[in-house]
Amino acid sequence: MGNDKKLVEEITSMEEDFAQWYTDVVKKAELVEYSGVRGCTIFRPAGYAIWELIQKELDARFKEVGVENVYMPMFIPESLLQKEKDHVEGFAPEVAWVTHGGGEQLQERLCVRPTSETIFCDFYAKIIESYRDLPKVYNQWCSVVRWEKTTRPFLRTMEFLWQEGHTAHATAEEAEERTIQMLNLYADFCEEVLAIPMVKGKKTDKEKFAGAEATYTIEALMHDGKALQSGTSHNFGDGFAKAFEIQYTDKDNTLKYVHQTSWGMTTRLIGAIIMVHGDNSGLVLPPMVAPTQIMIIPIQQKKEGVLEKAAEVKEKLGAFRVKVDDSDKSPGWKFSEQEMRGIPLRIEIGPKDIAANQAVIVRRDTREKTIVSLDEIDKRAGEILSAMQKEMLERARAHRDAHTYEAHNTEEFADIVANKPGFVKAMWCGERACEDEIKEKTGATSRCMPFEQKHIADTCVCCGKPARAMVYWGKAY
Amino acid sequence: MGNDKKLVEEITSMEEDFAQWYTDVVKKAELVEYSGVRGCTIFRPAGYAIWELIQKELDARFKEVGVENVYMPMFIPESLLQKEKDHVEGFAPEVAWVTHGGGEQLQERLCVRPTSETIFCDFYAKIIESYRDLPKVYNQWCSVVRWEKTTRPFLRTMEFLWQEGHTAHATAEEAEERTIQMLNLYADFCEEVLAIPMVKGKKTDKEKFAGAEATYTIEALMHDGKALQSGTSHNFGDGFAKAFEIQYTDKDNTLKYVHQTSWGMTTRLIGAIIMVHGDNSGLVLPPMVAPTQIMIIPIQQKKEGVLEKAAEVKEKLGAFRVKVDDSDKSPGWKFSEQEMRGIPLRIEIGPKDIAANQAVIVRRDTREKTIVSLDEIDKRAGEILSAMQKEMLERARAHRDAHTYEAHNTEEFADIVANKPGFVKAMWCGERACEDEIKEKTGATSRCMPFEQKHIADTCVCCGKPARAMVYWGKAY
Repeated sequence: MGNDKKLVEEITSMEEDFAQWYTDVVKKAELVEYSGVRGCTIFRPAGYAIWELIQKELDARFKEVGVENVYMPMFIPESLLQKEKDHVEGFAPEVAWVTHGGGEQLQERLCVRPTSETIFCDFYAKIIESYRDLPKVYNQWCSVVRWEKTTRPFLRTMEFLWQEGHTAHATAEEAEERTIQMLNLYADFCEEVLAIPMVKGKKTDKEKFAGAEATYTIEALMHDGKALQSGTSHNFGDGFAKAFEIQYTDKDNTLKYVHQTSWGMTTRLIGAIIMVHGDNSGLVLPPMVAPTQIMIIPIQQKKEGVLEKAAEVKEKLGAFRVKVDDSDKSPGWKFSEQEMRGIPLRIEIGPKDIAANQAVIVRRDTREKTIVSLDEIDKRAGEILSAMQKEMLERARAHRDAHTYEAHNTEEFADIVANKPGFVKAMWCGERACEDEIKEKTGATSRCMPFEQKHIADTCVCCGKPARAMVYWGKAY
Repeated sequence: MGNDKKLVEEITSMEEDFAQWYTDVVKKAELVEYSGVRGCTIFRPAGYAIWELIQKELDARFKEVGVENVYMPMFIPESLLQKEKDHVEGFAPEVAWVTHGGGEQLQERLCVRPTSETIFCDFYAKIIESYRDLPKVYNQWCSVVRWEKTTRPFLRTMEFLWQEGHTAHATAEEAEERTIQMLNLYADFCEEVLAIPMVKGKKTDKEKFAGAEATYTIEALMHDGKALQSGTSHNFGDGFAKAFEIQYTDKDNTLKYVHQTSWGMTTRLIGAIIMVHGDNSGLVLPPMVAPTQIMIIPIQQKKEGVLEKAAEVKEKLGAFRVKVDDSDKSPGWKFSEQEMRGIPLRIEIGPKDIAANQAVIVRRDTREKTIVSLDEIDKRAGEILSAMQKEMLERARAHRDAHTYEAHNTEEFADIVANKPGFVKAMWCGERACEDEIKEKTGATSRCMPFEQKHIADTCVCCGKPARAMVYWGKAY
């Protein structure tokens, strides 16, 4: 038993030190390894396979709403990055510059893309001529680089993987519609696939994307009560179109500027999965994005017929992502590993089970054990996986709702932020000065002005002037 | 008709100027667009979708042979690149260097990966401890950068997309076995999916990968008689392991170096598809990698019931990647577009066809027309697509075989290279001096020493000394 327990004991408990717990889980579940380059992590098979499942599910949803994939160069010439004023101000300080290539100094520096608005705009200016060419609804899956000072696996890394959608439309209405459509698609995806409930809303001007007219966001609450911005969708209006001269000839034969959007989600979602669902035994993966959904662990596997029966059960479970752990480790050690890696179900099967034509299914999240007949193990496993997916979302929602507070005045606000980690709902006057003051005094930032507004009070929680909107606030990753 | 013909007329014929024909096709079929960065192309939806299908098919084959996907950082510190002497000599001249990040000059330059041997080795040195950790059979899908002087879309670009597999094994035998296994997998994939026959063989020392003990290659012949290296698989022995100190404790409790391999295929495969199968009407895509396999083109589409029937046929063809072109262009224009884009089948359906409960299927490659009953159009379309896939491979093989020559002496060799574009089979003594001389005098390079050897003569075609091997030679992309 000493050995069996060792694996688990090496994780710090989340109550003791949530940040250390997180670091322990990503390392012990073998999701990432650190590389020799500061802030760049290596995605190991267990981590990358989660991203592959996210890609597959999300890409299928994209294609249903007319998104086409492309691939753009990773280098952006300095002059191109500078074409849109707000955009370059936002990104220039955090880019990596290529200055030499092929043994020579370049005439013009190239930045490694931190995001690809500029290069998409340059492309659209070339290929869009007429209203017949619209809309363009393109997306790319790639990696981007932002020179972050402090980094954490998945949450904030210098290089990260993401998708970035960039669209061009004939009208402002159509652009706004697409912006909201993609935000809703993101939120639905996170709830249905990742089992993470989202607050949907609009960013304040302070928090919006560099160059955007409006930024919409989905915000999730982690287990420790901190918020995580999980996806954003931007409406650019015709700002970029004017900077890059992206015009089309409309049906009335006049030249018009296109209206644009962009939207992205990143590998940060894996961090959200860990911090929403994980526990002190390690990772807990929602079945839909679990690279292995079921681990069959034979008991007394050297006894005749046990491994054969395990293989038979695996065969019967062919509709799922299933493996048999027939290594020479002890069952206890295997249980710990399966729990650490967040595999949703384990099936224990030994000589006594076989004699009774049954097996034990253990759920990773609740540890609930169900004895099932081998004759219907596929049906039952499917039911338990579905229930787990559903209940993980419900539990995450209940946790979030229990950690969402309303503040009616400055004192109440400060007290909640200091003592009750979670979202704080409070009224705001619309002035940046109040956002700045709240951040300075409490450490909380505005997460979003939610679509679902509620009138909590008449006045701004900070300055007491008339309120313009209810805002979700919180400390954030 | 003037307008209908315009699209096709804009392509240079391949007999007139093959290089220009190629450029015309990639542009007119909307596969790529040039970007503002020299040598970097934009993959447009029609081009990227081919790559997505290649990825899907190839990745499934990888997973069948135990390959696991990972993702490594795109930056490699200069000191890491320099650890293996031959490797750095081969790659350092053609890398791009990041010297500044986050507004500051970096203490150590980072190169944008030209390939990832060094970073995989650094990773393996960290995570491999015991024989239980072996083998590691990892792969990544990513983009890499090589500072090429002259570039052409797909064939040679500064940034390109690829997969790179990197493995570590306990023994030399196992590494060699994996090297050959992956080469065979590549060749099978190219024949079965891309309909391109491959010559499999070993590279000469001159042509092998920087740092490899042995490089194996698959070589294809393009329509113009030039060769294209289409995939390579390298056996590194324990050279990298010694440079990076990748050791494991074996069962006998002694420390041993691992043996490694790497193997890759790139977006250059799309260039191969174009140059093997294309014709003077544009692209011809093998059905297995055609993003759209069938284009339904309604005739007299404004007549009642035509578009409805076209939609019905599309529905019935749901097992395929199928579209209806119901735009307001003329049928002739639509035919030209479908041909330019290489869509394998078009289905013409008009009022007369509908009255007769039939439609016309036209094959892109042979232009053969088949009148089929609407009742069995799905079955017949499937048969025609299968036949097309098979016959495209046969035709490509016949073309290659008809353009493969044997040279028994220097004069014959020079004559073939000058007058008969294709592969030349000729004996070689094994000396680099002869390879150099042949290249200088004829422009042909050694493509590979094929696994299927044939004794053509006793002596080297260049120096007359005793021959060691039969070699495929040719001018190459």
